[in-house]
Amino acid sequence: MHMIAASTALALSFRLLTSDPATRARRGQLVTPHGTIETPAFMPVGTRATVKTLHPDEVWDSGARIVLGNTYHLMLRPGPDLIREAGGLHRFMSWPGAILTDSGGFQIFSLARQAKVTEAGVTFRSHLDGSRHLLTPERAMELQLAFGSDIVMALDHFVGLPSERPAVADSTARTHRWLQRCIAAHRALDGPARGSALFGICQGGMEPDLRRASAAEIAAAEVDGCAIGGLSVGEPKEVMAAMLDITIPELPPDKPRYLMGVGSPEDLWSGVAQGVDLFDCVLPTRLARNAALFTPDGRVNIRAQRFRNQHGPLDPECDCATCARFSAAYLHHLFRSEEILGLRLASVHNLRFLARQMETMRSALERGTFAAAHAEFAERYRPVGA
Amino acid sequence: MHMIAASTALALSFRLLTSDPATRARRGQLVTPHGTIETPAFMPVGTRATVKTLHPDEVWDSGARIVLGNTYHLMLRPGPDLIREAGGLHRFMSWPGAILTDSGGFQIFSLARQAKVTEAGVTFRSHLDGSRHLLTPERAMELQLAFGSDIVMALDHFVGLPSERPAVADSTARTHRWLQRCIAAHRALDGPARGSALFGICQGGMEPDLRRASAAEIAAAEVDGCAIGGLSVGEPKEVMAAMLDITIPELPPDKPRYLMGVGSPEDLWSGVAQGVDLFDCVLPTRLARNAALFTPDGRVNIRAQRFRNQHGPLDPECDCATCARFSAAYLHHLFRSEEILGLRLASVHNLRFLARQMETMRSALERGTFAAAHAEFAERYRPVGA
Repeated sequence: MHMIAASTALALSFRLLTSDPATRARRGQLVTPHGTIETPAFMPVGTRATVKTLHPDEVWDSGARIVLGNTYHLMLRPGPDLIREAGGLHRFMSWPGAILTDSGGFQIFSLARQAKVTEAGVTFRSHLDGSRHLLTPERAMELQLAFGSDIVMALDHFVGLPSERPAVADSTARTHRWLQRCIAAHRALDGPARGSALFGICQGGMEPDLRRASAAEIAAAEVDGCAIGGLSVGEPKEVMAAMLDITIPELPPDKPRYLMGVGSPEDLWSGVAQGVDLFDCVLPTRLARNAALFTPDGRVNIRAQRFRNQHGPLDPECDCATCARFSAAYLHHLFRSEEILGLRLASVHNLRFLARQMETMRSALERGTFAAAHAEFAERYRPVGA
Repeated sequence: MHMIAASTALALSFRLLTSDPATRARRGQLVTPHGTIETPAFMPVGTRATVKTLHPDEVWDSGARIVLGNTYHLMLRPGPDLIREAGGLHRFMSWPGAILTDSGGFQIFSLARQAKVTEAGVTFRSHLDGSRHLLTPERAMELQLAFGSDIVMALDHFVGLPSERPAVADSTARTHRWLQRCIAAHRALDGPARGSALFGICQGGMEPDLRRASAAEIAAAEVDGCAIGGLSVGEPKEVMAAMLDITIPELPPDKPRYLMGVGSPEDLWSGVAQGVDLFDCVLPTRLARNAALFTPDGRVNIRAQRFRNQHGPLDPECDCATCARFSAAYLHHLFRSEEILGLRLASVHNLRFLARQMETMRSALERGTFAAAHAEFAERYRPVGA
């Protein structure tokens, strides 16, 4: 434990600055070899060594200080050897901030062909060329260390919805066994000394007792942070809230908590209220490419006729580089004309919108007004389907 | 004539700084209401109110100070009323430099359906929605003035290759009659006072005597500049050179000369040597989107295997924002992964490459070493097919 703690200091430290008296929300700082991340924070997703359509300077200017890379994609193309040769993922994609990479497991189950889980790991065929691969907990560590990630994620086994309880129990137990192999491999590969922190992932499906047990297991493990996996996969919002309610109290207060795959404004606010520090999601950039832009009142579709001659900015309250410079009418024109610049200007806007939500949360936490700020947000913002 | 000259001074002035003793090349300055353009200059094409994939700052940073917009596209979407409402095309697309718009004719013949020429103008159906339109010389002026273009182009009649001599003679004569109607309409619409200069276009196909006569006709007209149309449409390079050789000497030395649709590095050098001041072409941005990048030795395809692990910049001599920041291996990865950022980084590179060619030409002209600089370029750069 001492050795881990000592080397962990090299790779990552988490400082809890304040905790909200009325909720579980916390304000913290995550110190990585590539800068300090003020938490709670949202991580844009840079799947294939690029946050889609954006220059790294645009991602940085949106306020993001950490991005997520997908190990499944990067292991297949351009591959770990090439990224290592390039001096690591940060240099390859010219991103000055921190990088967290996932383990590859989630994409294998959703994208790869013929995925098959054994105790050893996951075998699958690449969706690109059909080539056969085996991803083990040890290989997941090797890959992410080759990328030079500041935060590497343990390989977990996620079974998706709907799943029978025995399948959830089985995959959750396997996730725990794999975590121990990840910890050992990360240590054997000198992860901490190489500036890499390791997060474990709790699973447990939508089964309260399995969730609680899994959270306790991750909490007891020698990891630098605790991620909550297997949520935001299609379950109703109340179910996610209930699962978080069970999970979070089991997690140690002095380690960062990362809720995977969450990125709608309303879920970010709720997640923070529940005690989450980190989030990632493709949502803001994927929505942007589909013409859906965030505003303080909810999402709008920029292709809608009403924007055709709106010569002011889409959101007069927005301080993003897009709203500062271009009109809603121009964005409308770019989307109607299918011009690539539109995808990018919309992505800049959506990322900045989420980053600003996080800034609002952090400053409310500093002033002890988080609950009021949350209510103010919820009063105005209309989620899709609400 | 006096009235035109007086109002022309408001819209545009051209200063000839130096002429090359060994060739027809000239170094000049084109002063527009939206800044001064050092000539010879290349104009990137912003067809639908955007230079494809690029932010206006990226276009500006490449060195471009004037871009071209396409009237055919803009008249159909978003339409002249909307652009006027937005405060003109410069504001709509947030471009701080100058704008030249074409007349719409060329795209009608290449893109629209059922294009039919009468003495009145061109009727056609939109390729977007099949709607019926009539573009007359007068309408071409109205549209471009609604856009707020610094330089508007007269409507010409271009018949393409191959064409029989009678068809070329007929369309060339019509181009001349239309030019007089454009001049009258531009004046009636207060074009010069509104900050708009008018260029005429000479045609004449590949018929030496028709070319010469057309050039003389444009030269005699009350226009602010002379464009050379109907070249770079598939004819051999020797034929284009021969036509320029016939055309240029007929044109007045004190007006800017614009060779339409030319944009390969070798053609820019040859065109300047022939006495051309302005060029436009989709080539650099279209090539970029197709993975073809300019280097001092010729075009390369960034998807080629040899770039897979080239961890240095694509062109170590290049000062573009892409080469300064990203490796050839990263560009290769983006193109192989079909990531949109690749299109943009390549477009930045190609535009900067052409802008730098123009800078090299201008500084060689200032030092009286243009012919040597041209030889040095030609010695190294291998054009496609050479």
